[in-house]
Amino acid sequence: MEYAIGVDIGGTKIQFAAVDPNGQLLHKHLVPTEAQLGPNQVMEKLKAGIDHIIAALQTAESYVGIGIGSAGQIDFQAGTVVFAGDTLPGWTGMQIKSHVEERFHKPVYVDNDVNVIAVAEKVYGAGQDYASFVCLALGTGIGGAIVESGQLVRGAFGGAGELGHVSVDFNGPRCGCGNYGCIELYASGTGIARLGRETLAASRGKASWEPQSRDIIQAWQRGDPLAGQVMDQVIRALGTAVAGFIHSFNPEAVILGGGMSETGLLFFEALDNEVQTRTSPGMRKACRLLPAYVGADAGVIGAAAQVWHYRGNR
Amino acid sequence: MEYAIGVDIGGTKIQFAAVDPNGQLLHKHLVPTEAQLGPNQVMEKLKAGIDHIIAALQTAESYVGIGIGSAGQIDFQAGTVVFAGDTLPGWTGMQIKSHVEERFHKPVYVDNDVNVIAVAEKVYGAGQDYASFVCLALGTGIGGAIVESGQLVRGAFGGAGELGHVSVDFNGPRCGCGNYGCIELYASGTGIARLGRETLAASRGKASWEPQSRDIIQAWQRGDPLAGQVMDQVIRALGTAVAGFIHSFNPEAVILGGGMSETGLLFFEALDNEVQTRTSPGMRKACRLLPAYVGADAGVIGAAAQVWHYRGNR
Repeated sequence: MEYAIGVDIGGTKIQFAAVDPNGQLLHKHLVPTEAQLGPNQVMEKLKAGIDHIIAALQTAESYVGIGIGSAGQIDFQAGTVVFAGDTLPGWTGMQIKSHVEERFHKPVYVDNDVNVIAVAEKVYGAGQDYASFVCLALGTGIGGAIVESGQLVRGAFGGAGELGHVSVDFNGPRCGCGNYGCIELYASGTGIARLGRETLAASRGKASWEPQSRDIIQAWQRGDPLAGQVMDQVIRALGTAVAGFIHSFNPEAVILGGGMSETGLLFFEALDNEVQTRTSPGMRKACRLLPAYVGADAGVIGAAAQVWHYRGNR
Repeated sequence: MEYAIGVDIGGTKIQFAAVDPNGQLLHKHLVPTEAQLGPNQVMEKLKAGIDHIIAALQTAESYVGIGIGSAGQIDFQAGTVVFAGDTLPGWTGMQIKSHVEERFHKPVYVDNDVNVIAVAEKVYGAGQDYASFVCLALGTGIGGAIVESGQLVRGAFGGAGELGHVSVDFNGPRCGCGNYGCIELYASGTGIARLGRETLAASRGKASWEPQSRDIIQAWQRGDPLAGQVMDQVIRALGTAVAGFIHSFNPEAVILGGGMSETGLLFFEALDNEVQTRTSPGMRKACRLLPAYVGADAGVIGAAAQVWHYRGNR
C-alpha cells in the first residue's frame, strides 16, 4: 500500500501521520512545537517526526511523498516561509521544502495551514464536486482559501486568501494587520469575546455568561437576550463578509470549518439566512453554504492530500 | 495585415473597431444602443455594425475573429448573457456567441465589459508585467475583474469580480444587490453624490458645489473643507476595500480605471496613502497601485484583445 506522509505545523503542536489515497490515517504521531526553542529546533522536530512515521511503516507499506501544512504565509513554489508571526518566532524565511527534500529524497509540498484544509475538502470533503469554492476557517482567528478551476488562488507570493482581514466596517476598530473593522474582529473566537466584553460593559455586567466565545454561543443557544445582542452583530458582520466573497469570486460553495463552525446548527442556519439576504439573486442561487466535512484531523489529512492532488491522482 | 474586430456593448452606445495585434484602432464605428427597442434589435445592430467594419477593411486587411464585451453578467464559455439589468432590458439569456458565429463563421469571444478592460490592461496596458492583478473600474458604478496566473478568475458562471458589491460597512445603507454598505455606495460617481447630498443636508446647504461627483472632487481639489469631508469618507471607504482585495488576492498590482480615476493625481495619491496604511506590510510591499493605461477606447480594444489573448498570440 502507498502512503503520503502529512505534517501539520501549528504554534502549539506538530501532527504527523501516514495517509492513504482515500484519506485514511495510519501511525498518527504528535509532538509539542515548543516554538520558543527557535526555528532550527522546530525543523529538527519536523525531521524526527517524519523519521518516526517512516519507522512505523510495515514492510508492505511505502511512502511516495511528504506534504506539509504550516502556520504563516508560505511561498508554495519555493516551499519557504514568507512570514510567520509570534505563533512561530523566527520561522520567517525557513526553507522547509529544501530542508526536507535534502533529508528524505522524496517529493515535498509545503503550503499554509488553511490552503491544505481546502485541499482536504477538495480531495475528500465538501469541495469534491466543486471547481470553485471558498474555505473559511473560523477559529481563534479567521483564515481563508480560494479555489478557482480546481486550483488554489495564490497571488503574488502565495499570500492570497487572508479573508479574515477583509473589513466589514471602515470606521471599525484598528486591526493588527493595519486595516480597520476586519471580519476577524467580529466573528473569530477572540472577536466574539471582544463584542461580549463591550456588551457586558454597556449592560453593567449583569450577564449569565463570561465574555468567551463558547460561553456566549451557549447562552445565545438557550435564548439569553444579551448573548443574542452579541451574536446578532457577529452574524450580520460575517454574513456581510460572506456575501462580499460570493460577489467577488462567484463560488459554487462557501465551506465553513474551524472551531466556531462546530458550535451547532443554530449558528450555521442563522448565518445562511443572513447570507441569503445580503447576496444578489443570481450569485446566491449558484452558491451553497456548506459545513466542512473533514474533521479535527483536516490539517494533517490536507497536508498529505497535497501529494495525491499535485501528482494528479486525486 | 490581420485584425480582430472589437465590439463594446453599453447601455447607451455600441462601439466597433478593427484592432491590430498592437492595439491600434482602425475603422472606428459607433451607434446608439437604443436598448428600449429590445434585445433582437440590439442584436441586429451588433451584426450590422460588424458588417460595417468588414466592409471598411481594405484588400490587404483581413480579420481573424470577433471579440465582444457587454454590460451584464456573461457566461464566457457559452457566450451568453446570464443577467443584464435595466441597462439592457431583455438582454438576459441572449446567446451572443452563437448568433454572431452563425452569421460570420469566425471565432467569437464574449465577456463582460470590465473583464475585457482587464484583458486590455493585461495585453497592452498596466497589467503587462503582472500575472496576478485586480482591476477596478470606478465610474457611475464600480466594476471589477480579478486576474490570477495570467487568466481571469470567473467562478461558477463568470460572475466573479463584482467588487463594487463588497461591503465596507455592515451597518451601512441597503444596496440594490441586497447587501448593506457596498463600496459602490461610497466611491462610485453616484456614491460620492449621495455622500455629498448627506453632507449638504447636515450643513444646511451652505456649500459652493452641487452634489455631483465631478463638482465635489473639483471643490476638494481647490481646498473646500465641506467637499473635503465628503472625500475623506470616500477615500477611507475605498482604501478599506482595496486593502481587503489585497489581503484576499495578494495581487502584484491593483489597476484603477474609469471616469472617477481620471479626476487627477490628488485622488490617486490620497487613495494610495490610505491603502498603504490599511494593508499588512508583506502584502503591501508585493503590490503596486497603478492607473489604468488604456484610455477611453479600453472597452473596444479589450473586446478585440480577447481574440489575440485566447489564440495565444498575446
